[in-house]
Amino acid sequence: MKPNRLEAFSDGVIAIIITIMVLELHAPHEPTWTALRPLWPVILSYVLSYVYLGIYWNNHHHMLHMTRRVTGGILWANLHLLFWLSLTPFTTAWMGETHFAPVPTAIYGVVLLASAIAYYVLQLLIIRSQGPDSVLAMAVGRDKKGKLSPFVYLVGILTAFVHPGLSGALYATVALIWLIPDTRIERVLGASQPGD
Amino acid sequence: MKPNRLEAFSDGVIAIIITIMVLELHAPHEPTWTALRPLWPVILSYVLSYVYLGIYWNNHHHMLHMTRRVTGGILWANLHLLFWLSLTPFTTAWMGETHFAPVPTAIYGVVLLASAIAYYVLQLLIIRSQGPDSVLAMAVGRDKKGKLSPFVYLVGILTAFVHPGLSGALYATVALIWLIPDTRIERVLGASQPGD
Amino acid sequence: MKPNRLEAFSDGVIAIIITIMVLELHAPHEPTWTALRPLWPVILSYVLSYVYLGIYWNNHHHMLHMTRRVTGGILWANLHLLFWLSLTPFTTAWMGETHFAPVPTAIYGVVLLASAIAYYVLQLLIIRSQGPDSVLAMAVGRDKKGKLSPFVYLVGILTAFVHPGLSGALYATVALIWLIPDTRIERVLGASQPGD
Amino acid sequence: MKPNRLEAFSDGVIAIIITIMVLELHAPHEPTWTALRPLWPVILSYVLSYVYLGIYWNNHHHMLHMTRRVTGGILWANLHLLFWLSLTPFTTAWMGETHFAPVPTAIYGVVLLASAIAYYVLQLLIIRSQGPDSVLAMAVGRDKKGKLSPFVYLVGILTAFVHPGLSGALYATVALIWLIPDTRIERVLGASQPGD
Repeated sequence: MKPNRLEAFSDGVIAIIITIMVLELHAPHEPTWTALRPLWPVILSYVLSYVYLGIYWNNHHHMLHMTRRVTGGILWANLHLLFWLSLTPFTTAWMGETHFAPVPTAIYGVVLLASAIAYYVLQLLIIRSQGPDSVLAMAVGRDKKGKLSPFVYLVGILTAFVHPGLSGALYATVALIWLIPDTRIERVLGASQPGD
Repeated sequence: MKPNRLEAFSDGVIAIIITIMVLELHAPHEPTWTALRPLWPVILSYVLSYVYLGIYWNNHHHMLHMTRRVTGGILWANLHLLFWLSLTPFTTAWMGETHFAPVPTAIYGVVLLASAIAYYVLQLLIIRSQGPDSVLAMAVGRDKKGKLSPFVYLVGILTAFVHPGLSGALYATVALIWLIPDTRIERVLGASQPGD
Repeated sequence: MKPNRLEAFSDGVIAIIITIMVLELHAPHEPTWTALRPLWPVILSYVLSYVYLGIYWNNHHHMLHMTRRVTGGILWANLHLLFWLSLTPFTTAWMGETHFAPVPTAIYGVVLLASAIAYYVLQLLIIRSQGPDSVLAMAVGRDKKGKLSPFVYLVGILTAFVHPGLSGALYATVALIWLIPDTRIERVLGASQPGD
Repeated sequence: MKPNRLEAFSDGVIAIIITIMVLELHAPHEPTWTALRPLWPVILSYVLSYVYLGIYWNNHHHMLHMTRRVTGGILWANLHLLFWLSLTPFTTAWMGETHFAPVPTAIYGVVLLASAIAYYVLQLLIIRSQGPDSVLAMAVGRDKKGKLSPFVYLVGILTAFVHPGLSGALYATVALIWLIPDTRIERVLGASQPGD
């Protein structure tokens, strides 16, 4: 399988996930501002998940772009990542509809954590098959963000049982940290120097 | 990231949005003409949103076609546009099911307005990265339609609280104005002359 | 816009329509054979629509493959066709859930008829822009099937008020007639001789 | 029609099927661990179907990659396969929501069996059109897995009425057997030797 087919399939799945999430945003029965108010937590969690999926799409795309060969392991590590991402509409809806209640907020973090680990495993397998001198290995560098994020998710999961709002803030912070991920890779591609 | 990948992803998201909207068109329980009658506002708002998404797909496609380089800013401005478009099934369903009630009709206009602004920002970023002498800059020209539309949406939002039917007519008028947007761009591509 | 982008977008929309139809196939609450029995009309109408969308995808694909230039008119005629096809999940669900009741069966035929007319208009616009000596014009030839189908749909719509089962049989017959449409086009492409 | 268009369409349909399955995973109303517990069978059947669709996507992709020519028969055999796969979200939801009750578990196996037969027919048609000396014919070889699977599904269907849990284990076993299917094909492509 060529990387561009894997890329097209993954792009398709992420595009569908990001879009069907909005189906959980049910139109209220009453046509009033009051009816719209309880939707705010739902919209907020939708925005958070939208940004996360946008980041995953973007980073995943860059990573596959630097992949030369797709092995069976890479293929299933990729499907494994998409599996966890596909649970996002479920956790987003649950967290939003229960207005950031402890258990759903923790579960939301669990899926974020599992997605991050799945991404890390995929990245590891690609780098291993490409060699330590590959462009991807250099672009990833020491991968501070990738190593830090799981710990923040873990803190967010535990915090959810005490103060779920703080968990939401932690999840949002990680998203903000990742929002400008291209620079590392773009720098390497431009200057051919080890990144990070 | 190459423009054609961004284009493929955006096309995918718009194709999904345009199609899942129909899931809000619930089959009535009674198999009668009478049961079909309350669906008219739902179908009407579906048609309006379908035309809008068709216009966005078309114009967006032409714009990306003239884009040479995708920066991080362009990528997120594009995801920002898709975010507002992704809310269309929600606002369409709410406006339709409440039979063009004031608040949902105003909210429908708010999402139209936000989409228009997001499109404008994306266009601005692309033109800036391409230079003022680029084909896109010439094709867009003074962009009368792009500058006029937000004001009509704004009027439509305010009118919704007095006469929602008029708002619907205003939204439909903007759609009709945009229905033949290619000529500008096609003229430039054909004759290499400043458009508008 | 290049024909292959229009093709990719249309393929995407048809793939989504064909797939989300299954969402109307709700899992029964009881885990028994009895609970499965009322689903038969739903499954039957799903199969019928699935075959129709498969035919449209196939024929549409061949038609666009022979299209050299996409004008604004062709683009909107294509979106017009996709609009009617997008109503298929709705009419399929209604006809199936009401066990082929008169009104839903007639409405199902109305959408078939509108889709057929939209396809005919699209074909006309493409042939006109390509010229009467184009491969497509020769492949379509006298287009007996294309001209016959609308009349059978019309008969099916009227019959629905007397004997909806007969309408279903008529719709299925047209599908069967279209099931082997490639031969015409393939013959022309292979032998370069006028088709039909 | 070129194989790569058939591949793109099939990839799209499978991507949508694999993703909309998650829509059957409804967010519970209560934000508690207790509310999450009855979801386990639903999640379990989701994982099983996800792995199956991943296997089909992967194998289907490899098969089409070795296909040179798409005949009308291949096209419809492919749509026939996608039809059975499209029923997966329905059978997955029913089996999961009824906590692996006998009838839904048997029906789940019936759709697995029908998909396997549809895949076999498609493979047969492609090999026939490519010739017995083609790369695909060599890669498939004696096709032990392909011939064994239907019998295991059949046993699973019958077992469902006695011990549905065992059926689930049988379905999962077949999935595990298929999880590493590439080696056969990759070996052939690498060494140009008859596989299996």
